[in-house]
Amino acid sequence: MKKFFISKARRTRDTPYTNRIEKQGLTSYTVYNHMLLPTGFGLLEESYFHLKEHVQIWDVSGERQVQISGKDSAKLVQKMTCRDISKFKVGRCYYCLIIDDKGGLINDPVILKLKEDKFWISIADSDVILYAKGLATGFNLEVEIIEPDVNIIAVQGPKSSKLMEKILGSKILEMKFFSFDYFTFKNNNFLIAKSGWSKQGGFEIYVENRTAGLELYDELFLTGKEFNVKPGCPNLIERIESALLSCGNDFDNGDNPFECGLDKYIDLDTDADFLGKKALIKVSKEGIKKKLMGVKIDLDQIEISSEKALYDGNNLVGYLRSATYSPTFKKVVGIAMINKEYLDKSRAFEFRINGKTHQGTICDLPLI
Amino acid sequence: MKKFFISKARRTRDTPYTNRIEKQGLTSYTVYNHMLLPTGFGLLEESYFHLKEHVQIWDVSGERQVQISGKDSAKLVQKMTCRDISKFKVGRCYYCLIIDDKGGLINDPVILKLKEDKFWISIADSDVILYAKGLATGFNLEVEIIEPDVNIIAVQGPKSSKLMEKILGSKILEMKFFSFDYFTFKNNNFLIAKSGWSKQGGFEIYVENRTAGLELYDELFLTGKEFNVKPGCPNLIERIESALLSCGNDFDNGDNPFECGLDKYIDLDTDADFLGKKALIKVSKEGIKKKLMGVKIDLDQIEISSEKALYDGNNLVGYLRSATYSPTFKKVVGIAMINKEYLDKSRAFEFRINGKTHQGTICDLPLI
Repeated sequence: MKKFFISKARRTRDTPYTNRIEKQGLTSYTVYNHMLLPTGFGLLEESYFHLKEHVQIWDVSGERQVQISGKDSAKLVQKMTCRDISKFKVGRCYYCLIIDDKGGLINDPVILKLKEDKFWISIADSDVILYAKGLATGFNLEVEIIEPDVNIIAVQGPKSSKLMEKILGSKILEMKFFSFDYFTFKNNNFLIAKSGWSKQGGFEIYVENRTAGLELYDELFLTGKEFNVKPGCPNLIERIESALLSCGNDFDNGDNPFECGLDKYIDLDTDADFLGKKALIKVSKEGIKKKLMGVKIDLDQIEISSEKALYDGNNLVGYLRSATYSPTFKKVVGIAMINKEYLDKSRAFEFRINGKTHQGTICDLPLI
Repeated sequence: MKKFFISKARRTRDTPYTNRIEKQGLTSYTVYNHMLLPTGFGLLEESYFHLKEHVQIWDVSGERQVQISGKDSAKLVQKMTCRDISKFKVGRCYYCLIIDDKGGLINDPVILKLKEDKFWISIADSDVILYAKGLATGFNLEVEIIEPDVNIIAVQGPKSSKLMEKILGSKILEMKFFSFDYFTFKNNNFLIAKSGWSKQGGFEIYVENRTAGLELYDELFLTGKEFNVKPGCPNLIERIESALLSCGNDFDNGDNPFECGLDKYIDLDTDADFLGKKALIKVSKEGIKKKLMGVKIDLDQIEISSEKALYDGNNLVGYLRSATYSPTFKKVVGIAMINKEYLDKSRAFEFRINGKTHQGTICDLPLI
């Protein structure tokens, strides 16, 4: 596939680590929350195998924070998400779905409860801050909403615990998945969560001090040598195989959480006062008309820049939304929104690309 | 400067014209409103001179529409902008500033009044739709808010009128700047505005039917041959020289409209009920603390991916936010947010890049 350069501008902000990663073999970018997000350091497959075996350092500054604080902060956060936040604990991360009043998805952040009246919404790629501002103004809520200068370093891969222990001490090994705590490096304090956008284990360091963050970034590579550390980024193959959904790719505002198989993050039976509750109750009663599923296609490469229709003869089966060649499955694997009548998971479909027809099958998520 | 590739995905959507422009010599992209926006067809300077002499066809689909319709649509649109919309006429375009309740800029769209109760907000790069949804829900307004599948083709340059006349008839010559009307091509109707993001004259075709749009796209190149038509895109040199401000580059949510010299789009003396009115009245009384100005720097190339501090000795003069080499001025020209005490327009400053110090001067906008 033909490749094109990315243009830089202040609007698509660089990160504190941009100078570092560009010297470390970066080859490609995307734009995420108006910021440069690295997408490749050479071959995707090499990075995939490395991530599953060793440890990588990722510049995921594009995962911005919407900070909501003040008297009505919990009320506002609750309005935006269909998960009941009343039992959320300080020091914990929660995967939440931000929806509109019709139940349509706006974002799927991780929400960190910093204090009883202070939250970080760690967002995927849409301006949740504008939604929050609109709601706060309209409902006349007493909150402060800002995007703080937080620039996350993710440490991902099976050797991430060993690397982090060596730099930050053994206390970090006690952390449970989706909890966060504070750790000191060279007299600077870092909020670190046991989380990250891979299923290979790891941490996310919420860097609030740029200078201190760069020191820690460099230390991760220095100490990481013995663990075969490499720079990396969210890996398309790994994330599709692991069914880590991507906002804007796998779902958008035209989809609701049930259609994305995210039922366990929808609390309809509590007193939680959120927008779109009525709409989701209706969906839960009437059932869904489409659902995100895995697919496997007999191809050895693919590039997706818009959803692609899948057919059974002349009938529309659904739309392919993310896909990549998997060296594990030795075919293209992907995530597709499949119409209800085709949810039978062994169902075959046809798929046309560049004038040629290819065969594929629907399967479960995560892919097995 | 080292170049990097852009990764494609459904999240950064292609446009109806992507296949066309990639065969027409496209070299680079940016992402704009979650969509691919072309930024280069070969050399920037060649495209600049061509734009000022001939006619170009631009794929500016990334300039998305937020469609607001329904009983309370005017009320919602008014809440979002500091311009009094009560006298807006159907068939006209209006440059408007979207601000938050603190007077901070969110976007600077052109608003098209389609009907008394239907508007298109033709946006720069931020999710205005989420702000509108938040406000509509919070204020309990009866509106429908969607992003329709409108994909704009811009026809820009001094020969644009001749080209458009030849395809669509002489009626198009009667249009006034910032008006729009409907024109037929091959039995399909197109909303066309006399507007565009250059000062070289031109039109924007709001394509609502993808197939019909591609036919018109091809016709523009076929008929355009005699006018030396070329594919193009918003030109960094031309837009900086013309002082066409860029949201996210020249200003952001930390700036207010007065600071951007946009006083004539702020209506404080009418009954217009908009958010941030109190905050802007306060600014108008107390005066601004900084202002967008032009700058000229003794350099023959530059790349901006974050704002750069400008100094007078050890004192901070302001921040450079957009810049490019101008073959007309034979130096780097740019747009900078200058602190109040340095608004004397002949003021010199120093500027460090890659360890070297360069000199520059502050000047008026548009650059002369």
